[in-house]
Amino acid sequence: MKNKKKWVYFFGQGKAEGQATMKELLGGKGANLAEMTNIKLPVPPGFTISTEVCDYFSKNDHSYPEGLDEEFKANLEKLEKTSGKKFGDASNPLLVSVRSGAAVSMPGMMDTILNLGLNDKTVEGLAAKSSNERFAWDSYRRFIQMFGNVVKNIEHKVFEHELEKVKKEAGVEEDKDIPADKLKKLVASYKVAFKEKTGKDFPQDVNEQLADAVKAVFLSWDSERANKYREINKITGLLGTAVNVVAMVFGNMGDDSGTGVCFTRNPSNGENIFYGEFLQNAQGEDVVAGIRTPQPIAELEKVNKKIYDQLLEVRKILEKHYKDMQDIEFTIEKGILYILQTRNGKRTANAAIQIAVDLVKEKFLTEEQALLKVDPEQLNQLLHPTFDPKVKYNVIAKGLNASPGAAVGKIIFNSKKAEEIAMNGEKVMLVRAETSPEDLGGMHTAQGILTARGGMTSHAAVVTRAMGKPCIVGCSAVSINEEAGTCKIGLKEYKEGDYISINGTTGEIIDGQVPLVQPDISQGNFKVIMDWANRFRKLRVRANADTPKDCETSLYFGAEGVGLTRTEHMFFEGDRIIAVREMILAEDLESRKKPLAKLLAMQKQDFKEMLKIMDGLPVTIRLLDPPLHEFLPRTEEDLQAVAKELKVDIKKLKAKNESLHEFNPMMGHRGCRLGITFPEIYEMQAQAIFEAVAELHKEGIKVFVEVMIPLVGMVTELVFLKKRIKKIADEILKKNNADVPYKIGTMIEIPRAALTADIIAAEAEFFSFGTNDLTQMTFGFSRDDAGHFLGDYKEREILTTDPFVSLDVQGVGQLIEMAVKKGKSVRKDLKTGICGEHGGDPKSIEFCHKAGLEYVSCSPYRVPVAILAAAQAAVKENLTKK
Amino acid sequence: MKNKKKWVYFFGQGKAEGQATMKELLGGKGANLAEMTNIKLPVPPGFTISTEVCDYFSKNDHSYPEGLDEEFKANLEKLEKTSGKKFGDASNPLLVSVRSGAAVSMPGMMDTILNLGLNDKTVEGLAAKSSNERFAWDSYRRFIQMFGNVVKNIEHKVFEHELEKVKKEAGVEEDKDIPADKLKKLVASYKVAFKEKTGKDFPQDVNEQLADAVKAVFLSWDSERANKYREINKITGLLGTAVNVVAMVFGNMGDDSGTGVCFTRNPSNGENIFYGEFLQNAQGEDVVAGIRTPQPIAELEKVNKKIYDQLLEVRKILEKHYKDMQDIEFTIEKGILYILQTRNGKRTANAAIQIAVDLVKEKFLTEEQALLKVDPEQLNQLLHPTFDPKVKYNVIAKGLNASPGAAVGKIIFNSKKAEEIAMNGEKVMLVRAETSPEDLGGMHTAQGILTARGGMTSHAAVVTRAMGKPCIVGCSAVSINEEAGTCKIGLKEYKEGDYISINGTTGEIIDGQVPLVQPDISQGNFKVIMDWANRFRKLRVRANADTPKDCETSLYFGAEGVGLTRTEHMFFEGDRIIAVREMILAEDLESRKKPLAKLLAMQKQDFKEMLKIMDGLPVTIRLLDPPLHEFLPRTEEDLQAVAKELKVDIKKLKAKNESLHEFNPMMGHRGCRLGITFPEIYEMQAQAIFEAVAELHKEGIKVFVEVMIPLVGMVTELVFLKKRIKKIADEILKKNNADVPYKIGTMIEIPRAALTADIIAAEAEFFSFGTNDLTQMTFGFSRDDAGHFLGDYKEREILTTDPFVSLDVQGVGQLIEMAVKKGKSVRKDLKTGICGEHGGDPKSIEFCHKAGLEYVSCSPYRVPVAILAAAQAAVKENLTKK
Repeated sequence: MKNKKKWVYFFGQGKAEGQATMKELLGGKGANLAEMTNIKLPVPPGFTISTEVCDYFSKNDHSYPEGLDEEFKANLEKLEKTSGKKFGDASNPLLVSVRSGAAVSMPGMMDTILNLGLNDKTVEGLAAKSSNERFAWDSYRRFIQMFGNVVKNIEHKVFEHELEKVKKEAGVEEDKDIPADKLKKLVASYKVAFKEKTGKDFPQDVNEQLADAVKAVFLSWDSERANKYREINKITGLLGTAVNVVAMVFGNMGDDSGTGVCFTRNPSNGENIFYGEFLQNAQGEDVVAGIRTPQPIAELEKVNKKIYDQLLEVRKILEKHYKDMQDIEFTIEKGILYILQTRNGKRTANAAIQIAVDLVKEKFLTEEQALLKVDPEQLNQLLHPTFDPKVKYNVIAKGLNASPGAAVGKIIFNSKKAEEIAMNGEKVMLVRAETSPEDLGGMHTAQGILTARGGMTSHAAVVTRAMGKPCIVGCSAVSINEEAGTCKIGLKEYKEGDYISINGTTGEIIDGQVPLVQPDISQGNFKVIMDWANRFRKLRVRANADTPKDCETSLYFGAEGVGLTRTEHMFFEGDRIIAVREMILAEDLESRKKPLAKLLAMQKQDFKEMLKIMDGLPVTIRLLDPPLHEFLPRTEEDLQAVAKELKVDIKKLKAKNESLHEFNPMMGHRGCRLGITFPEIYEMQAQAIFEAVAELHKEGIKVFVEVMIPLVGMVTELVFLKKRIKKIADEILKKNNADVPYKIGTMIEIPRAALTADIIAAEAEFFSFGTNDLTQMTFGFSRDDAGHFLGDYKEREILTTDPFVSLDVQGVGQLIEMAVKKGKSVRKDLKTGICGEHGGDPKSIEFCHKAGLEYVSCSPYRVPVAILAAAQAAVKENLTKK
Repeated sequence: MKNKKKWVYFFGQGKAEGQATMKELLGGKGANLAEMTNIKLPVPPGFTISTEVCDYFSKNDHSYPEGLDEEFKANLEKLEKTSGKKFGDASNPLLVSVRSGAAVSMPGMMDTILNLGLNDKTVEGLAAKSSNERFAWDSYRRFIQMFGNVVKNIEHKVFEHELEKVKKEAGVEEDKDIPADKLKKLVASYKVAFKEKTGKDFPQDVNEQLADAVKAVFLSWDSERANKYREINKITGLLGTAVNVVAMVFGNMGDDSGTGVCFTRNPSNGENIFYGEFLQNAQGEDVVAGIRTPQPIAELEKVNKKIYDQLLEVRKILEKHYKDMQDIEFTIEKGILYILQTRNGKRTANAAIQIAVDLVKEKFLTEEQALLKVDPEQLNQLLHPTFDPKVKYNVIAKGLNASPGAAVGKIIFNSKKAEEIAMNGEKVMLVRAETSPEDLGGMHTAQGILTARGGMTSHAAVVTRAMGKPCIVGCSAVSINEEAGTCKIGLKEYKEGDYISINGTTGEIIDGQVPLVQPDISQGNFKVIMDWANRFRKLRVRANADTPKDCETSLYFGAEGVGLTRTEHMFFEGDRIIAVREMILAEDLESRKKPLAKLLAMQKQDFKEMLKIMDGLPVTIRLLDPPLHEFLPRTEEDLQAVAKELKVDIKKLKAKNESLHEFNPMMGHRGCRLGITFPEIYEMQAQAIFEAVAELHKEGIKVFVEVMIPLVGMVTELVFLKKRIKKIADEILKKNNADVPYKIGTMIEIPRAALTADIIAAEAEFFSFGTNDLTQMTFGFSRDDAGHFLGDYKEREILTTDPFVSLDVQGVGQLIEMAVKKGKSVRKDLKTGICGEHGGDPKSIEFCHKAGLEYVSCSPYRVPVAILAAAQAAVKENLTKK
């Protein structure tokens, strides 16, 4: 044999060449058909053409690999033998279904053809064999319709039009009432339509039919629809689809036949009842198409108790076998049950945790295994308010689902106004072209944020995710006319003060007020899952918290400390920004002292409040990080206002703005670089921190503060700053007789810091990986600009996942592993954690576990997600070891 | 003993505790005094307080380490014993000099005190002992003056004023003619002045004098002057200065005494003659101060042949011992010769190569050793035109010496005008606020460039260095009024068309036209050195060349190929920019084809010309790298002009500009990211390259082209582009029956590329390290913005060298070594080189040699520097092995 690769896998008569673990190769459907065959469930025989053929097909100008043809023929012969029928045989024809099936379920995306193998001759054979002429011709006309549509792209309406004509002629309402002779006529007119549209006769050669159908499935893998679906659902790394060629069984052979879809448990709430629906005398497509209304599955017991009991048995076998809730398709052909498909059923977050808890109670799963059955990402659904599921509403536009949760509020265009109005107890929806740090006040008070511009990592998106506040960004359907106090969303014009609702989980914008439902995570299944997760995980989970409120939220969600406090966020609030601007505009150290003193008092109060809430838990405080120009106004109007407020010459303000301008601010004068050029700023912050610590110590609060220096690339930076901070800390603690432990450490967010981690660890008492910046520098991608090409990159499969969403293990991960290893080589008890956005991403958390970090830190609302993901990482490791 | 550290090192009577190799610890002066003592040269005895004491002193609030005091006293006693005199003894006083001396010579920066140990009593002892009252009191008054000035910061003029008064009284012109009694009076008035200025009596306690003097030396290490000097001369990493306390010898004890400074060879041209000058009856300071005119050293033979012969003998011994030209200070005390100092003499580039060649001829050195005697950086002096050294001129302003060489031309403010005027054969000096890529045409035609703004890595600086064209940047004394056609430089106003001259080597701007002298490097000592260097080096040296002219220059200077052709530089010339802009403004692929076709023809012609010149040598061509917005105009005026020229709506042009705007362009849509979103651009370039290759092949030219893909961070980028380029290349070569080898490789300039070099090398046939960008990303420094803090970083010793000038071995170097190792692990014959600015920096070249790269590539004018540096790296390695 020239080619030893196996391309086709047979299943039938209780034996299959594939199995459930071969999803990558056979697709989900093919692998499960094989598995079900192996466990002796009644599956019609067939064979699966592997995804590798699809891959070859895509890469080789739609040609097939060598050896496929022979294998294909051999399998078809085997299928004929097994079924006792012959493909294209006029007297005893084998009919098949041709269905796609990739490793990941993509419902509705790939196309299916049923009844293939029918032609003018075999239709007669089918009629004779089934003693049902009507059924035979109905199958034929369905086949022509599907084949014409799927393979030849003939619009449905062409066939529907003919069907309607015939129904009128016959004087019937429903398809099933069309008599056989009219169906024959319909087939004839379908064939005419087929020729009109394609210029060719409908193929009578069954092998041509089959070849065309297989090719259509492979082509559909690369269709725009399928590509779009994969893009939206972030499905990447697949070879392609498999093609399943399965002997037909018919649910439409009379009232002793039927078809249905069911779940082994309720997918909405997880209740342990058999759930689903069926249609008598129908083919699968009838259920899907929704033309006839199916009956609840319980009704089947009355119709056919034997089959129903058999189905219950299948349900039991499948749940026991797959140890998970299953989504099953079945067909009854003349009183015989066939299982056409099984797969793990999709479920809501509520159902997921209910089922996981039940499966443990029922002893199907251990607690560890059950933890793996809940998608951490899905937990999000349970942490935010949602629209009342009982209420119907109209979506007026869609944007990017930047931060999950639902919110309702009055449209307000300006952050200051938002603050004012919220003060009166009104609910505000902040609607802006985009947000900047100056909008923080307004964002804090708003129920939700909607922006016309920006992507998933824009300012609005990042900040709201951290706040746990619903947000939709990049909604191009929004256009704001701030002067007129109006905006257009989709087709409707709104005035400031009008209500809208947004669903940050889906990106939907809804007219008016939709009632909300608040989550409760402190009891029930959620608590059970969290308790298990806390038992098994090794990683500690902290939260990124900038305010006392954030701290409270963090504790509520189970955080074990604060992993990142961005002190600059405190700089924007209220009249602090004035002091900050005074500080920036000060010409020398002397005149800088006054505004610094103001800030000192305010920061100290902030720290006291936060540290008090976090009593007994560690809190990492990052010293000032962003470049100073972020604190200055930008627009002419704001410049005027600020110049007036600060009583400075606007020219001076502009000159300062200009002198602070940077070509690449991301790599500019920020982080510890500011701390080195203006040591007085970090000194003020150190003083605020340790005075707060000393005072709280007197109150009996247990404080574990970790002072974090950002953007370190060279140990000399750390040495310079640590010395100054330590001096202040020790003086204050000594003066107050406060023997309180504290740590001074650094972020690792510059590649050079990771590369020289052994040198830096000699000075740093902890490393916190700032994976946002580390990703930027390692890739050389500016997060703000990468949108210019990331779309093309994903489309061309240069990148499979956005490295800002899920940590790039190969590159950035390599640096992290290197830094942990080097760091611990010189300081055994070096504490390591991660505080970038990746700290809340399940895949990234799994990496952190493997890399041996001590903790992850994420936004408060993602803490439960991180807890579960951390537990899953530990469980996976344990299971591998076993 | 509590403290085992040794702080003080004695020398005297032919035996020393130190030696020449201990410069770091004892400073150059101290180490050489010890060395000379050991080789039995007549050195006055003394001891050296190590630089570690200075380091301790700086870091511990000007206190001294434990144990120093005892050691100091012990050494002073030893000195008394050796000299047979006693410190502070009225009858036989020991006098000492106290001098600074760091590991690197810092002339004029540190202060010296002579005659220390004199007071009202010991002066009498000295008078008696020397039988020379005048000498004793003269020494005393000099001591008070120096001590007052150096230790107490009393201005010189205070003492000069008293001196003048006394000279007037005595009716004498010269200091040496003041009689003893007047000197006594002078001492009295010096003491009064001392008390007036300091509030304290001049110290009579000799131990107090010594302690104060030592402290003054240590303090002077941290003086502003010294810091400034080190900053300017990039002297970093030193512990501090040592202090040398040496028994005084006197050159001012009569006509049988004297002092002098000499070089063992001529430091201007390297001629092997004894060179220097001396003064009879004088102390060293008289020579330095320039009050009396010294005599040529040859005259000494007539004055005192014995001493002269002895000096010649010392000259021989020292040259033989140090194997290098020496700079010697000596004193003759009553007919006895003392050598006070020796060090390697500073010399001009011409002298350096002359001496190196001679020392080999004289068999002092091997060729390998001789190569180490020439500073590669200094070679630069010989590669550029210089001002005629015979002509005197007036410097009107100074800026940053961005690109070496001298130039003369007419002031022109506008690049287009510069091109026009140069076309008429006029010499142009382009004077601008700053330059941008649009100025390339003007810069090419100008003799030199002067900008008011920008730093050492500004556009003007980087481009002119690459062009080998003199350039001064950041000259704040220049203010341009382009509308009026005038500019002010320093205090003088110039009109467009007026002549100025600039010296890019020094940063000096000169009024009018200074005559130039052209270098000739093709013969003489320069050629000898280059021949040796070529023999010993292992690294190949290529040039970065963007034009045929660059290629010719590269070959002239000895380049062995082109390591970097920046194709985008070709995009700016003449009317090409129009086609480029048409390409950028094209809405779709179809309308992009026309301008691309225009560019194709032009690029092909460029490549043909360059590859023809480089016949037989490899040429690396980098595909388009900068972001597209660099090709669009910026100012309103230019936008108007371009809109008109291209016949596009100015709104469209502005919209395009805005859509291309990036927050951090350095990390934005450039390099291969452009190639991926617009594959047609790279395809056009590939077509141009290989059509040129095919046509040249027919002409019998040997072409070795290496296509380089910039900014690769993921192997998938390379796979995507390589496939397309290879397809085009193979088709063209096949069609033309041209069996020409070529390579496709990548720049390694993104940290992730280095980290995943093993994966990338599977696709890349060569790696060229783009160390400019790699440094930016590894440090997270934007080169354009780092100026905001690099000053503070250097001042605070956070950074010792600018990583953009000399490669950061610890961080960036680590990535390079990693990439080379990983890359070669999967592709043994992987070619590796460097093409960033570091390719011309001697220290960085040494690293490249050690890291096992195959070649460095630098700007054409730095090729000889690189050749020598490469040879030195190889020689150092050989010498270490031996």
